[in-house]
Amino acid sequence: MISVPGGVTAPSGFQAAGVSCGIKRRNPSSAAPLDLALLVADDPVAAAGVFTTNRAVAAPIVVAREHLMKSGGRARAVVVNSGCANACTGEVGMRVAVDMAAAAASAVGCAPHEVLIASTGVIGVLLDIEKVRAGVTSAAAALSRDGGDAATRAIMTTDPFPKSHAIAHETPQGTITVGGMAKGSGMIEPRMATMLGFLTTDARVDPPVLGAALRRVVDETFNAITVDGECSTNDCVFALASGRSTVTIERDDDPRLIEPMRAVAGHLAREIVRGGEGATKLVTVQVTGAASRADAWVAARTISNSPLVKTAIHGGDPNWGRLVAAAGRSGAAFVLDRASVSIGDVRLFVSGVPHDERADDAAAVLKAPTITITVDLGAGGGHTATMWTCDFSAEYVRINADYRT
Amino acid sequence: MISVPGGVTAPSGFQAAGVSCGIKRRNPSSAAPLDLALLVADDPVAAAGVFTTNRAVAAPIVVAREHLMKSGGRARAVVVNSGCANACTGEVGMRVAVDMAAAAASAVGCAPHEVLIASTGVIGVLLDIEKVRAGVTSAAAALSRDGGDAATRAIMTTDPFPKSHAIAHETPQGTITVGGMAKGSGMIEPRMATMLGFLTTDARVDPPVLGAALRRVVDETFNAITVDGECSTNDCVFALASGRSTVTIERDDDPRLIEPMRAVAGHLAREIVRGGEGATKLVTVQVTGAASRADAWVAARTISNSPLVKTAIHGGDPNWGRLVAAAGRSGAAFVLDRASVSIGDVRLFVSGVPHDERADDAAAVLKAPTITITVDLGAGGGHTATMWTCDFSAEYVRINADYRT
Repeated sequence: MISVPGGVTAPSGFQAAGVSCGIKRRNPSSAAPLDLALLVADDPVAAAGVFTTNRAVAAPIVVAREHLMKSGGRARAVVVNSGCANACTGEVGMRVAVDMAAAAASAVGCAPHEVLIASTGVIGVLLDIEKVRAGVTSAAAALSRDGGDAATRAIMTTDPFPKSHAIAHETPQGTITVGGMAKGSGMIEPRMATMLGFLTTDARVDPPVLGAALRRVVDETFNAITVDGECSTNDCVFALASGRSTVTIERDDDPRLIEPMRAVAGHLAREIVRGGEGATKLVTVQVTGAASRADAWVAARTISNSPLVKTAIHGGDPNWGRLVAAAGRSGAAFVLDRASVSIGDVRLFVSGVPHDERADDAAAVLKAPTITITVDLGAGGGHTATMWTCDFSAEYVRINADYRT
Repeated sequence: MISVPGGVTAPSGFQAAGVSCGIKRRNPSSAAPLDLALLVADDPVAAAGVFTTNRAVAAPIVVAREHLMKSGGRARAVVVNSGCANACTGEVGMRVAVDMAAAAASAVGCAPHEVLIASTGVIGVLLDIEKVRAGVTSAAAALSRDGGDAATRAIMTTDPFPKSHAIAHETPQGTITVGGMAKGSGMIEPRMATMLGFLTTDARVDPPVLGAALRRVVDETFNAITVDGECSTNDCVFALASGRSTVTIERDDDPRLIEPMRAVAGHLAREIVRGGEGATKLVTVQVTGAASRADAWVAARTISNSPLVKTAIHGGDPNWGRLVAAAGRSGAAFVLDRASVSIGDVRLFVSGVPHDERADDAAAVLKAPTITITVDLGAGGGHTATMWTCDFSAEYVRINADYRT
């Protein structure tokens, strides 16, 4: 597998564009910010989506889900705006979401249900459909085979950096290319949130297999990260497959597709954490020795979201007691006198016995920008889970409390 | 019901003391801090306990639980130290906990299993049993009918203020008095945590009824608060009933006992939140319109622990979108177009429709030190839940990250 440029337009069969249409407020001293992205396949292609589990779902999620259902998993275009989430906007917001898809359908020449949509930005504010229509028109005119980078910048809200990635994967049957872009939880402006991810591939794959592969990959990547444990009203990840490759995929666990998809999605997911609000460290949390797969995940999630663990990492404090306490309260089976904790390679707590003489070594590990923490639950099973989280800084609070809109 | 002085020694039949025995580090410029509390009933009395659900339980929890079992719910004394949690200390720590109870038993003249114990402070550090023995001896000599205040100060770690309360409740059959003391999550020194609560009463009540009443009260008070969603290895609440009142209680829902217990425990629980790390506001979170009792609680807990909700309150931002998003992701049944959100009396989101014209009114409400937030899930049921939480400040992060031990 090798990295290639181009993001979502790296695989054959896709064009993209990112334009400015006035949804985001403009800073008078700089260029108008990109706020509308259009991703178009040359023909209707296999498509799949994974959506937020939040029951306060935004209008674009409702519309995208319906369109995937109605089309049987085929799509020609994806249109995304940033700067306004079109969430909690009632029936008016629902009409705007429907019109947004219709505008893109008419611009690229397909049925409205062949368009997927996504929005990110302020909750509770109506999205101006006239701005969206103008944006769709200019984006359709600007579509290009190397438009992936502009599209990536157009889906950012206040992410500290754009996030795109692409992988070319050689197989005996030919090359599969997977591209992707994402935006994260850079909620520097209060009321802004949402994680969005978009994957493209040239694999030949039917919608049900693509959908199952996407769910499998998302569980280990976008669903395995946390910044603050919040889950937005607008979160979604889409995958589109153009079928331009010579490689046909018939099973959702086929490594020829799953491996490059996991590489691209994993990279984007870790970049979202690295760009999390106030984050200064990327932390990999590994849980081992769990009695079940569910136990491994609930322990990893509890540790990754623990404010005391995250503040200790921020302060460079090798505080294994907080890791033990978080694992213990997670609900997972946990056997204290067989449990162990390591920070990097430094074993601080081994089978229930503290090794505080190694605290200085662990503190040195915590100075790095990338840290791995391993907690063995001592529950005897071979189950494991890996999540990515960030440290918790006073800057997070300042971003979300002190800077008002 | 009227407030009376004296805390845990307000009800007849109890003595208490708080002494210094060198477990806490002494600041050379001030008096030695109190770090051992002894609460003694005149005779063995009905006793009950509620313990942490954390599976990494500290040694004193294991010992106290065993003693309650062995005694069939009777106790003569409770001994508590602060400054060291005796948690994650292996077999040596377990022996120290056993010896701590034995020391108190010998000082007051009862069986070891008639002594309950609790510890709070640093995790992973051995408790010095010689200091505990010396403390128990001097505390036994200092026992008095108005020792409740000294005991309250002796269980503090870095709580910003002591927490005690007592209520005298007139009934047609006579007066029932309930007293209490608690310590909270003032974790100003990293690695310190734990919530402890101690209730006393003069009611005539058998151990099983006292235990059931205690669980009922704790669910609505100590279990209905959160500072940061963490649950310590040492959390526990004990109740002791001396039987000196003329009032006999035979049912766990008898309001003559439940009401004053709830008043005392509720007051102490809210004081713990008010004294939470970095807290500047006490927030009551009311959830209504839930489809089930479990739904009401899971929504209240998710809202109360949401970093985005807590930072918005800290910043005085009437951000109803974050409240809707937290309720939506909680797992509770939630119907967006019938859901509503109020801050104080200001209805910001009514049956799915934003009322941002009232944002300034809501911002004014958020300036007060005590705030009530109501979220109706729109799920049609009549179930409700009330929790207490605090805002989330940069000070919380500084306390837990920047000030190292």
